[in-house]
Amino acid sequence: MDNLYALIMAGGGGTRLWPLSRQKRPKQMLALVEDRTMFQISVERLSPLLPPERILIVTGSDQVADLQRDTPHIPPENFIVEPFGQNTGPAVGLATVHIQQRDPNAVIAVLTADQHIADKAKFRRVLETAGELALKDYIVTLGISPSFPATGYGYIRRGNLMERINNFQTYHAAGFTEKPDLETAMQFLAAGLYSWNSGMFIYKVGRVLTEYQRQQPEMYALLQSIQAAVGTDTYPEVLDQMWRQMPRLSIDYAIMENAQNMAVIPVDIGWSDIGSWATLFDVLDGDHDGNVIRGQANTHINLDTRNTLIFSDRPVATIGLEDLVIVDTEDVLLVCDRKRSQEVRAVLDTLKQNGREDLL
Amino acid sequence: MDNLYALIMAGGGGTRLWPLSRQKRPKQMLALVEDRTMFQISVERLSPLLPPERILIVTGSDQVADLQRDTPHIPPENFIVEPFGQNTGPAVGLATVHIQQRDPNAVIAVLTADQHIADKAKFRRVLETAGELALKDYIVTLGISPSFPATGYGYIRRGNLMERINNFQTYHAAGFTEKPDLETAMQFLAAGLYSWNSGMFIYKVGRVLTEYQRQQPEMYALLQSIQAAVGTDTYPEVLDQMWRQMPRLSIDYAIMENAQNMAVIPVDIGWSDIGSWATLFDVLDGDHDGNVIRGQANTHINLDTRNTLIFSDRPVATIGLEDLVIVDTEDVLLVCDRKRSQEVRAVLDTLKQNGREDLL
Repeated sequence: MDNLYALIMAGGGGTRLWPLSRQKRPKQMLALVEDRTMFQISVERLSPLLPPERILIVTGSDQVADLQRDTPHIPPENFIVEPFGQNTGPAVGLATVHIQQRDPNAVIAVLTADQHIADKAKFRRVLETAGELALKDYIVTLGISPSFPATGYGYIRRGNLMERINNFQTYHAAGFTEKPDLETAMQFLAAGLYSWNSGMFIYKVGRVLTEYQRQQPEMYALLQSIQAAVGTDTYPEVLDQMWRQMPRLSIDYAIMENAQNMAVIPVDIGWSDIGSWATLFDVLDGDHDGNVIRGQANTHINLDTRNTLIFSDRPVATIGLEDLVIVDTEDVLLVCDRKRSQEVRAVLDTLKQNGREDLL
Repeated sequence: MDNLYALIMAGGGGTRLWPLSRQKRPKQMLALVEDRTMFQISVERLSPLLPPERILIVTGSDQVADLQRDTPHIPPENFIVEPFGQNTGPAVGLATVHIQQRDPNAVIAVLTADQHIADKAKFRRVLETAGELALKDYIVTLGISPSFPATGYGYIRRGNLMERINNFQTYHAAGFTEKPDLETAMQFLAAGLYSWNSGMFIYKVGRVLTEYQRQQPEMYALLQSIQAAVGTDTYPEVLDQMWRQMPRLSIDYAIMENAQNMAVIPVDIGWSDIGSWATLFDVLDGDHDGNVIRGQANTHINLDTRNTLIFSDRPVATIGLEDLVIVDTEDVLLVCDRKRSQEVRAVLDTLKQNGREDLL
């Protein structure tokens, strides 16, 4: 498919992997799983499906230089820069009108920069499959087969079975649900009809812009003005003016949850959003004691320590520990019960209250 | 008593508080309990009992400069320097002959530089009392009332009651026992007749040198040669020659265990040798969660953490921990079950095997 484009959303902040991730060093810039950054991996795993020319990145002005340095083979003009963060609805719209200018027949796969995908080959196959389905005027979502009743993800319910393409079953999407409570999530799992919303969508540019026009006419009008200025001298000024007026809405809320002709392809590709130290621990292979040791020093003097995650650039000695997370950075140290690693949010709140923005 | 002298033994290495204590930064040079070093505190707590002129220190050539910097009010000539470490028997003998040269009637209190004493006033009172008893030709030991069946200390059994001096009961010492096994230690505790050997002795110089002559004639002869050279140009050369021939024996083994006319004063002065992170934790006051936070940063972001000891010069965030020790130094990090902190020895063994002498 030579009109398939990838659009990687790499604007996020996010401090759920604090203190390694910071406001100025978000998750996609970290080497968490492999020895390259999450962003580098998210670009590389598209090869050989897509050439660099058809990989675009939408990001903020404060991150673009770092991301370009990480992926020198991507043409600089493929980095589409938001003046400042306005949530994913405007970001996807901005990138979509840019791509439409280049190729009115483009099919775009909206992808994330900070998620782990274990089965990269299958991921490329399902992207291609979703692209074929998108050509038939569907907006296609990749639905992740849920492995536990997560309350941190949105869910997609599948409706009627559609055709089988390349060994993937495709379905009408029958509805989106935002993050449910635990009881609802357990019902979803029992029903067997629900997938996690991975935040990955595949669509024809014209098809999704019709949805912007129908559901978000204000945003659509602003995007039209921006599109008219693409390639002209007034572009920066127009972008800045329009951007400030953008409603701050997520792509899910603004478009996907109420779009017509939604399809879903449920897949098991070893997906994880690595939303906490605990989920990173689950993704990484441990040593024979179940410990995961990462960082430049990589020296762990282990006395009777098990199932513990250590990120440190210095040698670390541990005695008699179990199920801990130890994250040792230049200016702050975190030691945490592995089962409670999502509570770093509360640490950040405390630091904010104490005026320690330098550590956020 | 204007012929009472303190002799502080400050030559030890010791890495039981690793990684804060190192081969080149022994325990007495650390600020563990207060904001001054253990050595500074061991000097200061002698005031007002003793003037600086009657406080002497025996130490190694590699440590003397640091110790002098820590106690500028002590006359430089009061630092008696061992050419290299030869255990405490020769060290005490060397200092004793030096002090005898100054004052043949001196009574010396041999003290340690790295032990904690909570009740400093009582400590000074018992030193004075021991000095009075030493004038009657006893070698007096301070016996610590044991609070648990320790296997890491020697024990002193008390014999017949002697006189009561300054509200302290004094006893004949009926025998020394080196570190016992747990069963024996429990019997000692039950018997009620045993004190821990604190390593603090008080004696008249002539009295103890008679014991050297009787029990360690070789060591005594070498000490005599050194004493003859004190104050002469040949002193460094003589010291070096004699020192190399010294038997490497502890003062307990060489002299005290078989000395005649030994007395013991059992005391409860809040003594601790701070032999591990666990014992340091016991000595220090915790916050309302029982946590002890030390170090320059002193910033602890605590989520549900209890009874944990943290030494760090950087901010530390902890979530859901209990009974841990976290020691964060420039080049290495220790995280340890508090009840197993004595196992840092095994960490040091591993580092040695791995050629990481830089971390010892």
